[in-house]
Amino acid sequence: MYQSSVVRDGGGAMRGWDFPLELDRRSGAPLTEQLVNALVAEIRRGRLEPGAALPGTRTLAKGLGVHRNTVVAAFEELRTQGWVETSRASHTRVSRALALPERVDQGRRGEALGFPLRPVRNSSRRFEAAPAGVLDFTGGLPDDRLFPTALLARAYRRAVAGPRGRPLAFGDPAGSPALRKRLAQLLSSRRGLSVGPDDVLVTRGSQLALHLLALALVKPGDVVAVESPGYPSAREAFALMGAHLMPVPVDREGLDVEALERKLERTRIRALYVTPQHQDPTTVTLSAPRRQRLLALARRHRFAIIEADYDHEFSLDGAPVLPMASSDQHGVVVYVGTLSKALAPGLRMGFVVGPRALRERLLALRGQVDRVGDLGLENAVAELLDDGEVQRHTLRARRVFRARRDVLVAALRRELGEVVDFEVPRGGLALWVTVKRGIDVERWAARALAQGVRFFTGALYSPEGRTLSALRLGFGALDETELQEAVRRMARAL
Amino acid sequence: MYQSSVVRDGGGAMRGWDFPLELDRRSGAPLTEQLVNALVAEIRRGRLEPGAALPGTRTLAKGLGVHRNTVVAAFEELRTQGWVETSRASHTRVSRALALPERVDQGRRGEALGFPLRPVRNSSRRFEAAPAGVLDFTGGLPDDRLFPTALLARAYRRAVAGPRGRPLAFGDPAGSPALRKRLAQLLSSRRGLSVGPDDVLVTRGSQLALHLLALALVKPGDVVAVESPGYPSAREAFALMGAHLMPVPVDREGLDVEALERKLERTRIRALYVTPQHQDPTTVTLSAPRRQRLLALARRHRFAIIEADYDHEFSLDGAPVLPMASSDQHGVVVYVGTLSKALAPGLRMGFVVGPRALRERLLALRGQVDRVGDLGLENAVAELLDDGEVQRHTLRARRVFRARRDVLVAALRRELGEVVDFEVPRGGLALWVTVKRGIDVERWAARALAQGVRFFTGALYSPEGRTLSALRLGFGALDETELQEAVRRMARAL
Repeated sequence: MYQSSVVRDGGGAMRGWDFPLELDRRSGAPLTEQLVNALVAEIRRGRLEPGAALPGTRTLAKGLGVHRNTVVAAFEELRTQGWVETSRASHTRVSRALALPERVDQGRRGEALGFPLRPVRNSSRRFEAAPAGVLDFTGGLPDDRLFPTALLARAYRRAVAGPRGRPLAFGDPAGSPALRKRLAQLLSSRRGLSVGPDDVLVTRGSQLALHLLALALVKPGDVVAVESPGYPSAREAFALMGAHLMPVPVDREGLDVEALERKLERTRIRALYVTPQHQDPTTVTLSAPRRQRLLALARRHRFAIIEADYDHEFSLDGAPVLPMASSDQHGVVVYVGTLSKALAPGLRMGFVVGPRALRERLLALRGQVDRVGDLGLENAVAELLDDGEVQRHTLRARRVFRARRDVLVAALRRELGEVVDFEVPRGGLALWVTVKRGIDVERWAARALAQGVRFFTGALYSPEGRTLSALRLGFGALDETELQEAVRRMARAL
Repeated sequence: MYQSSVVRDGGGAMRGWDFPLELDRRSGAPLTEQLVNALVAEIRRGRLEPGAALPGTRTLAKGLGVHRNTVVAAFEELRTQGWVETSRASHTRVSRALALPERVDQGRRGEALGFPLRPVRNSSRRFEAAPAGVLDFTGGLPDDRLFPTALLARAYRRAVAGPRGRPLAFGDPAGSPALRKRLAQLLSSRRGLSVGPDDVLVTRGSQLALHLLALALVKPGDVVAVESPGYPSAREAFALMGAHLMPVPVDREGLDVEALERKLERTRIRALYVTPQHQDPTTVTLSAPRRQRLLALARRHRFAIIEADYDHEFSLDGAPVLPMASSDQHGVVVYVGTLSKALAPGLRMGFVVGPRALRERLLALRGQVDRVGDLGLENAVAELLDDGEVQRHTLRARRVFRARRDVLVAALRRELGEVVDFEVPRGGLALWVTVKRGIDVERWAARALAQGVRFFTGALYSPEGRTLSALRLGFGALDETELQEAVRRMARAL
């Protein structure tokens, strides 16, 4: 750091002007810019007050060890920006038009808040990483360690540095055409949705899809039905836009459609959020009769069924159920899917398929929310789909997850068979475990964390905020050894 | 495609059941899953009605040329999902609990809309790419063709496939710690904001920052002041959350702070969106006296100054002005920056610095909007900053843009000197051009598009929706030859 303290009383123009200016020749910033910034900082700090005289350019240049042109350019810049003015005698002074400066105390920076904020439900703590060494059952996520990152990196290089297109220009807010084409093929061939690329809207994970849907469907005070227990992030997306939530119970056949029907007699709803494939968190599948009845209800009452098929790929036993969207002919179902589970949670790749008019609305909203996705990454994932890499990875991962589920099931029966009960889930990456009455699950969770294992209790999933004698164990992100150790720690914490 | 038409009347159980089932042995989907999906599709189409008998497993297996176990597994799956039921005589029938099926007409898919949508201002058309061959002055964006994509690809490979961290796991919603550290250094050393990594929130472009700010600051009916003329996407972000917009005029010294002060006597505002560095669209710099007065006003009236420093890097003549945020000690300024301009528009990298309480609120909101950014890409950009590549690219790009600006200025004077007037902008990537009265700019723009050149007229920037005798010419994304040709086309279209 080159530092020059301007000589005290070194000249008439410098009288009363005695503080150091710092220039750093190695910073890469032009010296003129550094000098301008330093002088502005002094004006702001109040050390140079309105009307104060600056030293002459020659004097200052000499004091700082810089060429006089540097100082001349800096003064010219300060004049242009309005910080200084030049008197008839060519003396440069701090502009008298400046308001009285306020002393900036950099140490306090960030603590002050000069305007009111709206209240926001802050539940982001649940996304915080577990402390080091803690085995983490939360999330129901796949294992990013299984993902073939080298293949992704190669595909990304081809996508951004290859000859095709200009993925770093602003692109289509609907998402990469290549990825939408692949998704449309996948949805048509494997999920019974006969759609083309222009029916698909790519979003950054399903959370952005839910946020855009809330913007498109809900105005403050509207009612949105949600599963109870159900996925907390979906509730938050709708509540954020001012929706009132109407919980609908879930039983062993999934959402209780009869209960919904009764509620609809009294209450008009805009939308229902539902997870028919493996209900989140209970993992049950919505039965066929209920699906059909739900479609008819939506048609009659004109609400949107937001069908989140969040882990279609991870039907561990048996075939996945076709989405409700595949039998929707009246434009009532909005299908929300994600590749983040098939790939890795950090790759935010969701998608929405629904009526065309809705898609247009979502596109317009997206322009106002985050403009456009990451087309380079989307093109890279399209290539991985093209090459069959995603499919191969999913098959591999499904085998791994099935084995992990079975290890967890065995460990729970062995270590905790007396106190827990559960159905082996046909799919998904989590177990929904009910706990014997008399055991305080919240205290168990707290003690478990101290023992080095983290899980969420049922209360997180209750829209009514009730304590449930249940917990959810996401097994996708822990390997078999970790799972066994995690269950041992749970048992120790009982 | 292997296709088996089940033999008509081939057995008792198949009576009245005569349609083809298609199985595709090369699709990679398990045959059981294909059979399940095909039968569900028939039930949904109404060809298999509730109560209809399915053929026996042996008969069906033979007809399809598959192993009987495949059919047995498919029937078992259908039973689990609730589509079929088994009678005492072991006959499998379509479940009688199913509601009467509705015929799905796949051709009409997407056209129907079964629920109401909220109205949304749809201005996304302006983001559409210009038709091929059209030279595009819209946007004020940098040139993605200048960007060293190979370096980005290499950095991305290191970020996701290297040994450091797990960027494909869910990460910090505040953004990559490595990138926040770099940004904090940059802001401290070059922009006078003394901040640490924990003061920075990385967003996907500045648009997401504005959206999150609107969520944090505005409830429906609140007033937000905006520049007139001003940046349309900022207005949209606030209007989307129900804000009333209060236009404040801009003159040759930037925002007319006196006019704002008069308006504040009658109207309480939550926030002001302002672009002090190079006002968007007029490119003027907010004068120093006005900056200070504005800070005092915000403090007195307790509103947030949202300072968008969107092209700090592209001060083409002279030093950039230090942001207002650098002299804020009362927590009234929220600083919004972006790397998308320094890098490439398709790399969505914005950031926000503001009071800590605001940052907490924005983090909570982000969890509900899109959860987390793309940490792999953020780490890659952090590495490019580490290596000085971003800085080198910016220096190179600044020279290129200065030359382009000068070429455009010369071409406009030569070809259109009689009808246009403008100040040469000190920075930014666009010219704000006023047009001689008597020329209909909207008609000019339309004719120009037919001639193969696109630009936006002043009306887009007017919050009052007024026609302005002005246009904006973004020169960053066109090379020198293209710029000259573009101006010739403008002249031909007059």
